[in-house]
Amino acid sequence: MTRRNIRNVGILIFDGVDLLDFAGPFEVFHQTRLAPGVQPRRSRETAPFEVFTVAPTSAPVRANGGVLITPHHSFADTPRIDLLVVPGGLGTRRLIHDRELIDWLRDRAATAERVASVCTGALLLAQAGLLQDRRATTHWAAADLLESLGSGAIVVRDQRVVEDGIVTSAGVSSGIDMAFHVVEALFGRGVAEDTARYIEYQLQKS
Amino acid sequence: MTRRNIRNVGILIFDGVDLLDFAGPFEVFHQTRLAPGVQPRRSRETAPFEVFTVAPTSAPVRANGGVLITPHHSFADTPRIDLLVVPGGLGTRRLIHDRELIDWLRDRAATAERVASVCTGALLLAQAGLLQDRRATTHWAAADLLESLGSGAIVVRDQRVVEDGIVTSAGVSSGIDMAFHVVEALFGRGVAEDTARYIEYQLQKS
Repeated sequence: MTRRNIRNVGILIFDGVDLLDFAGPFEVFHQTRLAPGVQPRRSRETAPFEVFTVAPTSAPVRANGGVLITPHHSFADTPRIDLLVVPGGLGTRRLIHDRELIDWLRDRAATAERVASVCTGALLLAQAGLLQDRRATTHWAAADLLESLGSGAIVVRDQRVVEDGIVTSAGVSSGIDMAFHVVEALFGRGVAEDTARYIEYQLQKS
Repeated sequence: MTRRNIRNVGILIFDGVDLLDFAGPFEVFHQTRLAPGVQPRRSRETAPFEVFTVAPTSAPVRANGGVLITPHHSFADTPRIDLLVVPGGLGTRRLIHDRELIDWLRDRAATAERVASVCTGALLLAQAGLLQDRRATTHWAAADLLESLGSGAIVVRDQRVVEDGIVTSAGVSSGIDMAFHVVEALFGRGVAEDTARYIEYQLQKS
């Protein structure tokens, strides 16, 4: 596999991002290999994704629990994003009013191959107008809020992962399922199963 | 609940720590509340754990994927640890030869109420002599290595979580199950189920 086949996965992080919302998909995409087993995980040779975090500035971000994470990139120096991942967390309540961030999301979504959210990350996609007339899900405790934003999203309350052009997932740990859903869509069930086996995650039935 | 009932959860992090190994248990302990539902998660009032990361020094640690995490504490300034959590990752291969770290683990384990590992974190516990004559598990690809360390651990290869005085868990995502196992042991199935519902994780059968 040549370097030109690598997809860049950009995961947004911000003050108040939920730690597992971001770490779950990061782990899945980072550990995906197109060749099975342990040895391929020792190098990047068959890695189809380059995964990085992106924050508004280069300053460390405070995830929930006060975990300080230094982003790989700031908005100013972010490379091309093929797969844009928007996690949630209590920080999203403030960010739905952050014009710069919402504009950045809309711009990046326009050039990304795929856009996905975890948990209340869907609120940010909704605010950016990206969920208009699309079925979408979020954390169960935020479903009413998502509906109330007037974004035109058709809120789904009983699925962990919803794909309708954009991929949204339910609360926190369902972001792991979202990532496997994307891996399977791009590279097939075998690659998803092998990656799940490597991180010892029990895949949902496909 | 008074502050004196709070248990300190110290999660070791280090260069080459696996991101999800550490983030999964962090999230579970951080989100545990003794009162159910959404509102209790908006404050720390019914939180039974104070969760923090600990690293050998105060310098940021590079998790897999190059995620830079600033530890809450260095070895020099770590408060009391009631529940010591040792994640794994490729970095453990080097750390089994790190005398200072192994000594620190042994010292902290001696005063902790409980000790737990995720994935190849079990290699470090073994090296510290903590798994002598105990049943223990690790990532499936490291089971032979754990056996070969001559630590006296009785290696279990078919369970996600093994409790035998010390709690060990299998690869990466099974650390989430380890954390729920501890939550259930301390506070009962109801608290574990409510916390799992909040982070939308599908609990193993108890």
